[in-house]
Amino acid sequence: MKRILWMACLLLVSRQSHAQRTTAISSPDRAFRLTVATTAQGQLTYQLTYKNKPVIQPSTLGFTFSKPAMTLSRFSIVSIDSSRHDETWQPVWGEVSQIRDHHHELAVTVRSQTATPVDMLVRFRLFNDGLGFRYEFPKQTNLSHFVVADELTQFALTGDHKTFWIPGDYDTNEYLYNTTPISRIDALAAARKEKDIALQSLAGPDVIQTPLLMKTAQGVWISLHEAALLNYPVMQLKVDKTNFRLQSTLVPDVIGNKAYLQTPAQTPWRTLVISDKAADLLASKLILNLNAPPAFSDVSWIKPQKFIGVWWEMHTGKGTWEKAGGKHAANTQNVKKYIDFAAKNGFDGVLVEGWNQGWEDWFGNWKENVFDFVSPYDDYNMDELTAYAQRQGVRLIMHHETSGSVTNYERRMDRAYQYMVDKGINTVKTGYVGRIIPRGEHHDGQWMVNHYQWVAAKTAEYKLMVSSHESARPTGLHRTYPNWLASEAARGNEFNNAPTLGLVPEHETILPFTRLMGGPMDYTPGFFRFKLNQFEPTRKQEIRTTLAKQLADYVTMYSPLQMAGDLPENYEPHLDALQFIRDVPVDWDDTRILAAEPGDYVTIARKAKGKPNWFIGAVTDENSRTHTVALSFLEPGQAYDATIYRDADNADWKTNPAAYVVEKMPVTNQTTLTLKLAKGGGCAISIMKR
Amino acid sequence: MKRILWMACLLLVSRQSHAQRTTAISSPDRAFRLTVATTAQGQLTYQLTYKNKPVIQPSTLGFTFSKPAMTLSRFSIVSIDSSRHDETWQPVWGEVSQIRDHHHELAVTVRSQTATPVDMLVRFRLFNDGLGFRYEFPKQTNLSHFVVADELTQFALTGDHKTFWIPGDYDTNEYLYNTTPISRIDALAAARKEKDIALQSLAGPDVIQTPLLMKTAQGVWISLHEAALLNYPVMQLKVDKTNFRLQSTLVPDVIGNKAYLQTPAQTPWRTLVISDKAADLLASKLILNLNAPPAFSDVSWIKPQKFIGVWWEMHTGKGTWEKAGGKHAANTQNVKKYIDFAAKNGFDGVLVEGWNQGWEDWFGNWKENVFDFVSPYDDYNMDELTAYAQRQGVRLIMHHETSGSVTNYERRMDRAYQYMVDKGINTVKTGYVGRIIPRGEHHDGQWMVNHYQWVAAKTAEYKLMVSSHESARPTGLHRTYPNWLASEAARGNEFNNAPTLGLVPEHETILPFTRLMGGPMDYTPGFFRFKLNQFEPTRKQEIRTTLAKQLADYVTMYSPLQMAGDLPENYEPHLDALQFIRDVPVDWDDTRILAAEPGDYVTIARKAKGKPNWFIGAVTDENSRTHTVALSFLEPGQAYDATIYRDADNADWKTNPAAYVVEKMPVTNQTTLTLKLAKGGGCAISIMKR
Repeated sequence: MKRILWMACLLLVSRQSHAQRTTAISSPDRAFRLTVATTAQGQLTYQLTYKNKPVIQPSTLGFTFSKPAMTLSRFSIVSIDSSRHDETWQPVWGEVSQIRDHHHELAVTVRSQTATPVDMLVRFRLFNDGLGFRYEFPKQTNLSHFVVADELTQFALTGDHKTFWIPGDYDTNEYLYNTTPISRIDALAAARKEKDIALQSLAGPDVIQTPLLMKTAQGVWISLHEAALLNYPVMQLKVDKTNFRLQSTLVPDVIGNKAYLQTPAQTPWRTLVISDKAADLLASKLILNLNAPPAFSDVSWIKPQKFIGVWWEMHTGKGTWEKAGGKHAANTQNVKKYIDFAAKNGFDGVLVEGWNQGWEDWFGNWKENVFDFVSPYDDYNMDELTAYAQRQGVRLIMHHETSGSVTNYERRMDRAYQYMVDKGINTVKTGYVGRIIPRGEHHDGQWMVNHYQWVAAKTAEYKLMVSSHESARPTGLHRTYPNWLASEAARGNEFNNAPTLGLVPEHETILPFTRLMGGPMDYTPGFFRFKLNQFEPTRKQEIRTTLAKQLADYVTMYSPLQMAGDLPENYEPHLDALQFIRDVPVDWDDTRILAAEPGDYVTIARKAKGKPNWFIGAVTDENSRTHTVALSFLEPGQAYDATIYRDADNADWKTNPAAYVVEKMPVTNQTTLTLKLAKGGGCAISIMKR
Repeated sequence: MKRILWMACLLLVSRQSHAQRTTAISSPDRAFRLTVATTAQGQLTYQLTYKNKPVIQPSTLGFTFSKPAMTLSRFSIVSIDSSRHDETWQPVWGEVSQIRDHHHELAVTVRSQTATPVDMLVRFRLFNDGLGFRYEFPKQTNLSHFVVADELTQFALTGDHKTFWIPGDYDTNEYLYNTTPISRIDALAAARKEKDIALQSLAGPDVIQTPLLMKTAQGVWISLHEAALLNYPVMQLKVDKTNFRLQSTLVPDVIGNKAYLQTPAQTPWRTLVISDKAADLLASKLILNLNAPPAFSDVSWIKPQKFIGVWWEMHTGKGTWEKAGGKHAANTQNVKKYIDFAAKNGFDGVLVEGWNQGWEDWFGNWKENVFDFVSPYDDYNMDELTAYAQRQGVRLIMHHETSGSVTNYERRMDRAYQYMVDKGINTVKTGYVGRIIPRGEHHDGQWMVNHYQWVAAKTAEYKLMVSSHESARPTGLHRTYPNWLASEAARGNEFNNAPTLGLVPEHETILPFTRLMGGPMDYTPGFFRFKLNQFEPTRKQEIRTTLAKQLADYVTMYSPLQMAGDLPENYEPHLDALQFIRDVPVDWDDTRILAAEPGDYVTIARKAKGKPNWFIGAVTDENSRTHTVALSFLEPGQAYDATIYRDADNADWKTNPAAYVVEKMPVTNQTTLTLKLAKGGGCAISIMKR
């Protein structure tokens, strides 16, 4: 890794008086300019312009501690350092094979104007696509162990932006997105509509979650989130709907405290990815750049993968997770069918939910001792199945549903992971459905954030990969823990089966700009059967996309871990369409955002890792659209064979979702394709070098 | 195991009407009579007489649940069963080699008069030395998972008894005992005096702890406690000082709930050991009889033991637990000296506190990630020391101080125990100093009770023995987990070093009748140096007993795990006195309570396990006493050599504690010894078969 570090030299101290002091830096391309100042009253503020227009007005920074009890809201500047950084690094896996970290840094050390002064450093990093900053508390005599009561970070916006938001909730982020001006945000009303979410812990009337997407009246896109969430609670945002100011609000613990820290300590980075092109948000690597390199050196065992699973048949009523009742899905014979299907179609893994004892009363009782993670039901022959899978080149994927009883999981973890190693299983899907134990803790509080990191670190020790469900939304930690392949942490494809609000066609055109800004999602696309009354005729729910759009998701919803969510028997009649899922990679050398408008459409092309082939996904909301796509990114002079999986002309997410057409055609870098997307539809294309 | 079970036949239904019903049983020796009844209002009551006089007046039984929300206070009797039991069993270790469990049982099944009726069974067991009863909730349609808000168990006493009590506290039991009539109990005032206790969580103005010792005006002794505390919080007692009624009050969790249960469920046994002779309390095996047999079958690896430790030198200021500061006691060279001393004097083990990294900021910060339990300080060579100890036939004893951060301990437990196994260490002293994490949980709540059981079970899997400090006070679980050798869970000998209240001479004459009723204590007797200014000349604290009394403690304070608490250099000048500690066993075939008056004196004789030798201990309070002890328990016609370790004639706990005399004399079962105990003194005697 190469690191260019120039101290000073772009420090611009413009005015300096006894109490007031101002300093500024610009982004490498000068599009952004950050100004940090202390006011006459001692307030510490930052402001940001983009292309010479303000995007963040002067906004205050500070803290309240509950121990030692003090408020850090007035400061004197102690020192100011600045530096330039430009390096390029290679992710273990990702959307691109090379990532450039090019930023200018400003480190402002301040001293609190409190009875016992405390030193604090605010580190700003200004990139060509936005800003990250964090608080640091160096080791110091006056502060060692301390407890954060509130973080007082302001984001003073410039107007009543259009926002894509979900309600602030300490325990879930599985909400539908709401699109309103800031002034019309009503988190509680939005939350009340959500009958499909079993556990809500609402943060308050005007509190919303990040990643938050905003669009100014001038057409500037802003994505507000955080990076490197470690040893700290999730940040949510309290909205001042009159003055268009957002204020950080942290998820509390059971006592009401926010974070227990010890110097040297640092907060996560508060991030603002900003552009006048929405597509640029999707291309941004700002959040990854603010995360640390891998925490361990041997990453050779980490493999992006595709999988199927014994899972959807429980959601649709064919089988059950629990053995009692006589419909146990995770039985040896049934799982063998999945293994056969996986082997035949090139899937790496077979997830098996409901394999282990404890499902009879796993949910809703705040029960601590639910699962032991090493005891299969007696109709599930683990050894027979792992051997059967191995003979066919397939691996089982472990499922650790904790039922929210995390103390129970942690105390059994070493044995559970050793059991996986013993059985040759190298990937685990974790789950945190329900109220957390330790009782009173929240999914998004510091304690659970530390748990997720513990899982990432511990699984790495055992060379295991993880997909976490019902965890806090990601913040780019897959750079540091590349074995943490994906999280759910948003409303996933499974919500098509939810009885009330379910999903809406625009959902997949918003997720890339919101939830996915932090990291990959285990969205479980690939549904091929749309009416969900297959096993329970009275069931009314339907999948709210077209089949072609389900395919396009594999490209537009980037993840190194992709499931084909449907049942083998639902794929069998559509092997021509399944071919796309078989072909589509889960790791990439390059990515081009061809078209993107949040809430409307997303079209992305990606080049397979280490291969000359490209794949395109295009999705639309409830409106039909026609996109033209120039294949100019292909290698000049090279012939390719394109296979286009498109909506049939009469396709419609509501009335005819399963209608698709598979077409093949030769293409070159001169070709321009016209993609017709049905209402709620999409298009997937594989382009194979001839 | 032999079990005689006679159904029915001692059932006495005296009156039976629509609403009222009464049934009664007697103890095998007919000294006790228990009557259970429902009142006209549907209240379920029990009452108890002893030698035809009431000891418990009609007292109600019941529950409040928070989920499902209901109060169980009125019942109809569904069925009544009774049975007789008489069996004899052998403890793995103990005060006697054979224990008889002889009781009459009454099982009353009732149905609650609630909208949704709930079935509950109250199982009473009446022994010749008292009563145990518990609630059971069988598996039933109307009740599965439930949350206990309150247990409504009453103990209606017959008068303003003299009581030996400590204040109700959710987190500690390290209080001095208070001796007052019930009407004069003032828990908060007593707690306020206790400046030596760092963490207090007071349960309320008139709440006190068990084991509670009471004496009626008629001279009847009552010990109120519980047995088999599993998956339930500690029971404390709310005192009605006017009507002399005690009411159960359970230690809450962070939410305010008491217990999360699932049918079939049962509470611990509520126990009343009763006799007109105080000595009978000490001989009672009622609490052990109410606990289950060992939870595992191979107990061959469990060994009672004596040990010394790198410990007191930190308490007295010679060294420190932490390495920073340059006075680290647990360094390789120093520990070798302890190993040498242990080998020379026949100790089994050497406890080493402060061996592992993390002590620099271990206390008082509610810090979670304190210790990892596998990382020695760099001046502590674990492998060298374990090898050095092994060559001399000594074992190191592990120390796992958790700092109250139990989540951290549990998640590292498997590795910590495997580390012990790898190093050949088979005993661990656990510690829970400070506020518990999960934050808001208490040492005596259900969550921690489950943790202590988890430790007992988990260490057993690794064939490890445990002494737990700062844990909930014992309830006879050493029958079920015989590897759980001892607990602290009371004010230990170390409090002699506390700067304010410290210890008082009567303490060791109360502990056997209170704290020790539940199980062995790791009291750490054996101090030979009385002024504690050895390393810090300004230190004013002094040990508040005589040297002879410190020896007597090894007999009067039964434990299978006994420490010699002082420093090797403090033993060296008194090797003649040390000989008693070398000789005294930690496991016994027989025990005779020769004299006992709580708060005044205790004299006990015990016969060594599998050997013909006897040992006597006698302790007194602040008053000097003369006891005559007839050695009639010795084998008739057999000659013995007695060694008497007594207070010198001028000994006095305050002015001359170190003055002792060692005398030898031949004895037989015809001998009567006259023991003169100094003020705050004692006497220890070994009687070896010639």
